[in-house]
Amino acid sequence: MIQTPYLLFLGDAPDALSAKVAQGIKDWRPDNAVGQFRMEGCGTTVGLSDMTLQEGLEAGAKTLVIGVANRGGVISEAWKTVLVEALEMGYDIASGLHNLLRDEDEIQRAAKVHGATLHDVRIPSVAYPIANGIKRTGKRCLAVGTDCSVGKMYTGLCIDAEMTKRGMKSTFRPTGQTGILITGGGVPLDAVIADFMAGAVEYLTPDNDADHWDHIEGQGSLYHVSYSGVTMALIHGGQPDALILCHEPTRAHMRGLPTYQQPELETLRDTALSMAKVANPACVVAGVSINTQHMSEDDARAYIKDVEDRMGLPTTDPFRFGAERLVDALEAL
Amino acid sequence: MIQTPYLLFLGDAPDALSAKVAQGIKDWRPDNAVGQFRMEGCGTTVGLSDMTLQEGLEAGAKTLVIGVANRGGVISEAWKTVLVEALEMGYDIASGLHNLLRDEDEIQRAAKVHGATLHDVRIPSVAYPIANGIKRTGKRCLAVGTDCSVGKMYTGLCIDAEMTKRGMKSTFRPTGQTGILITGGGVPLDAVIADFMAGAVEYLTPDNDADHWDHIEGQGSLYHVSYSGVTMALIHGGQPDALILCHEPTRAHMRGLPTYQQPELETLRDTALSMAKVANPACVVAGVSINTQHMSEDDARAYIKDVEDRMGLPTTDPFRFGAERLVDALEAL
Repeated sequence: MIQTPYLLFLGDAPDALSAKVAQGIKDWRPDNAVGQFRMEGCGTTVGLSDMTLQEGLEAGAKTLVIGVANRGGVISEAWKTVLVEALEMGYDIASGLHNLLRDEDEIQRAAKVHGATLHDVRIPSVAYPIANGIKRTGKRCLAVGTDCSVGKMYTGLCIDAEMTKRGMKSTFRPTGQTGILITGGGVPLDAVIADFMAGAVEYLTPDNDADHWDHIEGQGSLYHVSYSGVTMALIHGGQPDALILCHEPTRAHMRGLPTYQQPELETLRDTALSMAKVANPACVVAGVSINTQHMSEDDARAYIKDVEDRMGLPTTDPFRFGAERLVDALEAL
Repeated sequence: MIQTPYLLFLGDAPDALSAKVAQGIKDWRPDNAVGQFRMEGCGTTVGLSDMTLQEGLEAGAKTLVIGVANRGGVISEAWKTVLVEALEMGYDIASGLHNLLRDEDEIQRAAKVHGATLHDVRIPSVAYPIANGIKRTGKRCLAVGTDCSVGKMYTGLCIDAEMTKRGMKSTFRPTGQTGILITGGGVPLDAVIADFMAGAVEYLTPDNDADHWDHIEGQGSLYHVSYSGVTMALIHGGQPDALILCHEPTRAHMRGLPTYQQPELETLRDTALSMAKVANPACVVAGVSINTQHMSEDDARAYIKDVEDRMGLPTTDPFRFGAERLVDALEAL
């Protein structure tokens, strides 16, 4: 686990998109961040107080979290100066960058000298077991998509937030870098070795109270040929009691695969449910989450109503219109 | 690729089972082996000429292949003495052992000094790409099973052998340690990082002549919750034109999962085919391979006939009764 609270490093982020990790922390776990650290040239903000490293420490920050993508995939000298200074002051550092903190000599050395921990969250830090398939206690919900990047993480976070609001027992279980940085822990599933994928998901979602819900972050899609194996491991390792189908209606083709089309929601429902029942015969499809970010409100509401009428499942855009109906459905199980 | 031919190292193998890698090479690629090397205490043979390291070299051997499992997972001092001597004499060494050659200081050092290559075939040696899903030329056949270890590798090898006998263009494409050692190359799929599994299978089975068949070694099962993700990556990365369903009728439960049952062959057929059609809409199920090793000949023939009548697909135990009918079906596609 990454020590909280964080100071969010925005560096020289040129725009909001490049700071989406920091924005995710601000949106979903505001209590995890005491403020933001911006360098000269930073062109965006996530709306937290600007702090120096010293002010962050005084506000209680334990970890400096890289909340921004690095330009050109290089950790610049200007960044390094700040990161080394932070380590000298007693911060840990957490990063989901492709190039690893530990591969930078100066950063590695400073961490060693000052007894600080470097969290490269793209790399598994645990030797995960092979999945044993044994039934676990507690409830699990998994978001599965017609495509990659259709809003599975946001769907899980929205449902978790609504359950928490209702006083239900609920935990969001990240399986990707952004989710891990937002919550402070999880499994970087796409970096796990093939044989241990399902075991990593079992590890992530252990036995729990009978009325506790794990919301497992989905990855890939059963219908995305590049990543479907990761999705399958989530379905079998996760043993979900409930699936939420996720869809983004405006895609012209599968992400990154110009000759592949998204499946119908009905097709996804049937395939994902039949595979989920292998690990948990009681699994049901509980609802549908539509990512309507590229649709007008009228179009979004009409599309959602159409899906709900067609499929007979509670349907919404939980980020835009709230997750209440999805949580109602899960609560009723 | 591992340099052939091999001298097969049987070490102090106590019995035939522990020497199954050497036996597989002898059975399937006899031209790849000039002889066998046995140490004191070896209790088995694969029926090749016994040779010293020197005799192996004189017979043309380029690589000493560890054809035996090591007891207790330890590379013993007695083994090391032989392996270091082989490196000094100019052999490469190839191994599928869990503990790696490269992790043994003496072996690593001798390889370096003598310019020899150590092939630890459990570990990928290539940075595989992310799958792009682009249609490739040539034909591909994938064996999928109701369970792990039901004979998928032997099915592929039998079909490849029969096609070769008929003068058809055919290549067996290994995805596991034993297959890699048998043929000299392949992808250790269960050790590949999740995001690159399907890409590794694309890499393994590139564009080929229109009338060439790749026989992709299957792994795991869509219905085995520990490894189903690996199977899914094979189905989507492999883009098979044909599936062969593999089944072992005498299992009491899924391998290693006492509370899980094998699916019906019809269930496997429907699920595997619908997933395969995502990557290749023209894919068909071409036949059924029954592993009858634990059945009498009468029982085996009756079982096979029953499956064939029920499913309307050419059905056989290709290892026991020949692969002709499966190859007939593939040839007719």
